[in-house]
Amino acid sequence: MIIVIQSKDQVGLVSAISTVLANLQLNIVSLREHVDKAENRFFMRIEVEQDSDADALETAILQVLPGGAIVKVNPVPTKKVVVMVTKEYHCLADILVRHYFKTLGAEVLCVIGNHAHLGDICKRFDIPFYAVLTEGNSKEAFESQVQAHIAAYQPDYIILAKFMRILSPQFVAQYPGKIINIHHSFLPAFVGANPYKQAFERGVKLIGATAHFVTNELDEGPIIAQQIIPVNHTYNTAAMVKAGKDIEVAALAKALQMVFSDRVFVYNNKTVVFE
Amino acid sequence: MIIVIQSKDQVGLVSAISTVLANLQLNIVSLREHVDKAENRFFMRIEVEQDSDADALETAILQVLPGGAIVKVNPVPTKKVVVMVTKEYHCLADILVRHYFKTLGAEVLCVIGNHAHLGDICKRFDIPFYAVLTEGNSKEAFESQVQAHIAAYQPDYIILAKFMRILSPQFVAQYPGKIINIHHSFLPAFVGANPYKQAFERGVKLIGATAHFVTNELDEGPIIAQQIIPVNHTYNTAAMVKAGKDIEVAALAKALQMVFSDRVFVYNNKTVVFE
Amino acid sequence: MIIVIQSKDQVGLVSAISTVLANLQLNIVSLREHVDKAENRFFMRIEVEQDSDADALETAILQVLPGGAIVKVNPVPTKKVVVMVTKEYHCLADILVRHYFKTLGAEVLCVIGNHAHLGDICKRFDIPFYAVLTEGNSKEAFESQVQAHIAAYQPDYIILAKFMRILSPQFVAQYPGKIINIHHSFLPAFVGANPYKQAFERGVKLIGATAHFVTNELDEGPIIAQQIIPVNHTYNTAAMVKAGKDIEVAALAKALQMVFSDRVFVYNNKTVVFE
Amino acid sequence: MIIVIQSKDQVGLVSAISTVLANLQLNIVSLREHVDKAENRFFMRIEVEQDSDADALETAILQVLPGGAIVKVNPVPTKKVVVMVTKEYHCLADILVRHYFKTLGAEVLCVIGNHAHLGDICKRFDIPFYAVLTEGNSKEAFESQVQAHIAAYQPDYIILAKFMRILSPQFVAQYPGKIINIHHSFLPAFVGANPYKQAFERGVKLIGATAHFVTNELDEGPIIAQQIIPVNHTYNTAAMVKAGKDIEVAALAKALQMVFSDRVFVYNNKTVVFE
Repeated sequence: MIIVIQSKDQVGLVSAISTVLANLQLNIVSLREHVDKAENRFFMRIEVEQDSDADALETAILQVLPGGAIVKVNPVPTKKVVVMVTKEYHCLADILVRHYFKTLGAEVLCVIGNHAHLGDICKRFDIPFYAVLTEGNSKEAFESQVQAHIAAYQPDYIILAKFMRILSPQFVAQYPGKIINIHHSFLPAFVGANPYKQAFERGVKLIGATAHFVTNELDEGPIIAQQIIPVNHTYNTAAMVKAGKDIEVAALAKALQMVFSDRVFVYNNKTVVFE
Repeated sequence: MIIVIQSKDQVGLVSAISTVLANLQLNIVSLREHVDKAENRFFMRIEVEQDSDADALETAILQVLPGGAIVKVNPVPTKKVVVMVTKEYHCLADILVRHYFKTLGAEVLCVIGNHAHLGDICKRFDIPFYAVLTEGNSKEAFESQVQAHIAAYQPDYIILAKFMRILSPQFVAQYPGKIINIHHSFLPAFVGANPYKQAFERGVKLIGATAHFVTNELDEGPIIAQQIIPVNHTYNTAAMVKAGKDIEVAALAKALQMVFSDRVFVYNNKTVVFE
Repeated sequence: MIIVIQSKDQVGLVSAISTVLANLQLNIVSLREHVDKAENRFFMRIEVEQDSDADALETAILQVLPGGAIVKVNPVPTKKVVVMVTKEYHCLADILVRHYFKTLGAEVLCVIGNHAHLGDICKRFDIPFYAVLTEGNSKEAFESQVQAHIAAYQPDYIILAKFMRILSPQFVAQYPGKIINIHHSFLPAFVGANPYKQAFERGVKLIGATAHFVTNELDEGPIIAQQIIPVNHTYNTAAMVKAGKDIEVAALAKALQMVFSDRVFVYNNKTVVFE
Repeated sequence: MIIVIQSKDQVGLVSAISTVLANLQLNIVSLREHVDKAENRFFMRIEVEQDSDADALETAILQVLPGGAIVKVNPVPTKKVVVMVTKEYHCLADILVRHYFKTLGAEVLCVIGNHAHLGDICKRFDIPFYAVLTEGNSKEAFESQVQAHIAAYQPDYIILAKFMRILSPQFVAQYPGKIINIHHSFLPAFVGANPYKQAFERGVKLIGATAHFVTNELDEGPIIAQQIIPVNHTYNTAAMVKAGKDIEVAALAKALQMVFSDRVFVYNNKTVVFE
């Protein structure tokens, strides 16, 4: 059973929380704690060996915490996700393969593409694919169709697995803290379009990929995971795009693994990640 | 103030320990805990904001733990170390520079070399250097002279910073858990002499360095930190030796930083390192 | 067009070879050259912009080289491969996905499994799968059935993508320089069975994966690519196995990419890899 | 002997150049070549076993190249450098130690500090140190005093080893292609002051360091080498500063090693680095 806690900090929190667990004979097998001194903020993730009544435990823990605390016991056993894509296959394929072999740690409900391109690979894995084309569609119409699909599935998270269109603030506001994007640069370098072209032109010696929660500031949401790979003068933009695919897959996979196992806390546009 | 605890595991340890601290109004700013389920072993490192009487706190914590537990409060504020070297300068120079600029986290008491080679650099940093030559000296005589120097300084740790001679079991037995070595390979690959030559002959694509506690099994002691660096077909043995120096420095520096800040626990020939 | 050359070294080789190309008005866009001084051996890979008659060019280049040289012009445009597997999916899935999206740089002819386990994923990608079970089959019978399948497909390479059974010297001798294996350790550490269990017991802080050509010395063939990933005390053997999968995929993918683009030369049980 | 060549590209360059060498019985032990197709630019670095008359060889090679080519034979056997610093010691100490043990590949002529802070470490290594204080000095006066020192030493390169003051365009213009800086971020992220504070506020999961040639665009010069290190939520700005020091040392050391061995070519605000 997993317990995640976020709260104002004060003396005695660890004692108070762990005493609640000890009184219930729950054995702690893993405990991670972080205090952000500057913000006076307390974060904790506990794994206990035994199961227990989640609601009762949440209530019991809340009683020993300062007001405004957030406690979740065993939050959503297997996360449910909708994946959004454009044409690039690599992140989607990684998700589909892990899902198929039951190592993703989440259930893929459906895939939505703004091109029809990736429908076939979804079909091969028996995952529903919806082509909601951007071409010939207003942004509003496009987003409302996407929202209708999402509404039908009620996912815990929406994964933008190389979805190459900027979503409107109205859309993003529907799913606070629920949209995870993979951006193909080492943010905050190369915000926006064509980061590999920007990287090539700047002559960098490392390129990166960043998995982050989506907020209404473009490429400015809380960062979950980043990866880099060395490049050199022999890489033109196309070669960087190609080399970058592997770290995009890796950064997104790492971020999803952390999120799906309740290891990620968000506060003040940053994350605490208990790896 | 830092508290390190190693003990048999049982339900309620976190609660019991943290309640002792809470009762003393000690605020936990960092807590790391690990349970080795297979060995039923509990490891914990706590940083608290305030200072407190160390002996009293040790006693209070021991009272809530199972028999045989080890508790150290604020163990040896600044570690004292003796460094042993042969001819290679890089690890020693890194230690001397950090020591000089007070970022080593330890006090270098003296350096002992089995060649006179590195005496001058020590002198430049005002560190006593003793040349105890292996040439023309029996192993017994050599080691007894080294032991006399160590006895005069009473260090907490002995750092083998590229000391290229195997120490006898009798010598090692004098300093259990106190000798830290940097071995120039990715152990357990290439145990013993000339690991880079072995690596070159095997045609590996990565070379490594391993910092570990010394036991009487050659290159078999508990590993603290490891580093690697890519190599390729253009590296002959000499080039590997050269490339390896930087990761030897890095692995040893990392290990020392962890040990000097009381983040390393040893159990069953392995380490728990709370980075 | 790609030209690969291996030869005894002597003065003037670059001049002689490049003059052959210049006389044919072939423009060199990439040239990599390595001389192993100790072995007096010369390796070269050239990409030229234009195409030319391969046989004529090979003959022309051979004429300017010492006796015994090997020259291949544009060797096998797209390599053909047979993949062998047991139960683990991750390396196979990576190959199937890249193949499906035409980024593998090779054609997957079929997959042979010594368990039936991975038949379904092959079927989903329309790749023939042959289950040649080891259970209830002598080693001889097993290998002769596998050889029959291979004979039917005539691949350039046989990829052991987590094929967990040791092949006989007789089998290996059939395909010299053609079998590529991914071993789940940082060779030469942890040769043989259960490397992650060995790694766990040794308490290493990095685990590795090694892609290599198969010879008749177990895990002793020429290394093509190696990858590592950090681990720590929280990893038991199962967690190491899981963490290792990603670097097994990465090391094998890198090795295949190098081999399929004619960047790998083998000499004296080592490789020259022009990345 | 090392030969570096930069030129417009055209068919037959490798042949023409290598034939010049072959005619002189010079044996090529290493040859690296790069063609930037987009820019139609040719770069080459050759190591030959034997020595030869440098001027005659330059002339002979220039004769077979297009107009405007640059050829340097064995350029400046050991580079001479002036180092500029402020208060941080780590990059300077690394340079001084390598210099003292003759592994820097360059001669350190003197160190200029805009604080007196690092004078003592230079004295310990018998390197002249000049304190040219910025405090109580106009920028003009400061720079003209620095220029006087540089003029007295005539270095090939000026190394800004954590020199924390922006130099004027007039100053930089004096030393085109000769000033190398280490910037404490993964450029182009976090240009300008306090990059670690910027990194902390953005919540990145990797921090970087960039060694680059200095031009009159702040932090926009050609990048030579970059390094990164993972960070997490436990790092405040001070911890990032501390963690960053090791990669600043590493990135600068790598860049200097490449520059001092004539492996770096600059073109169009980018570098070609033949590692």
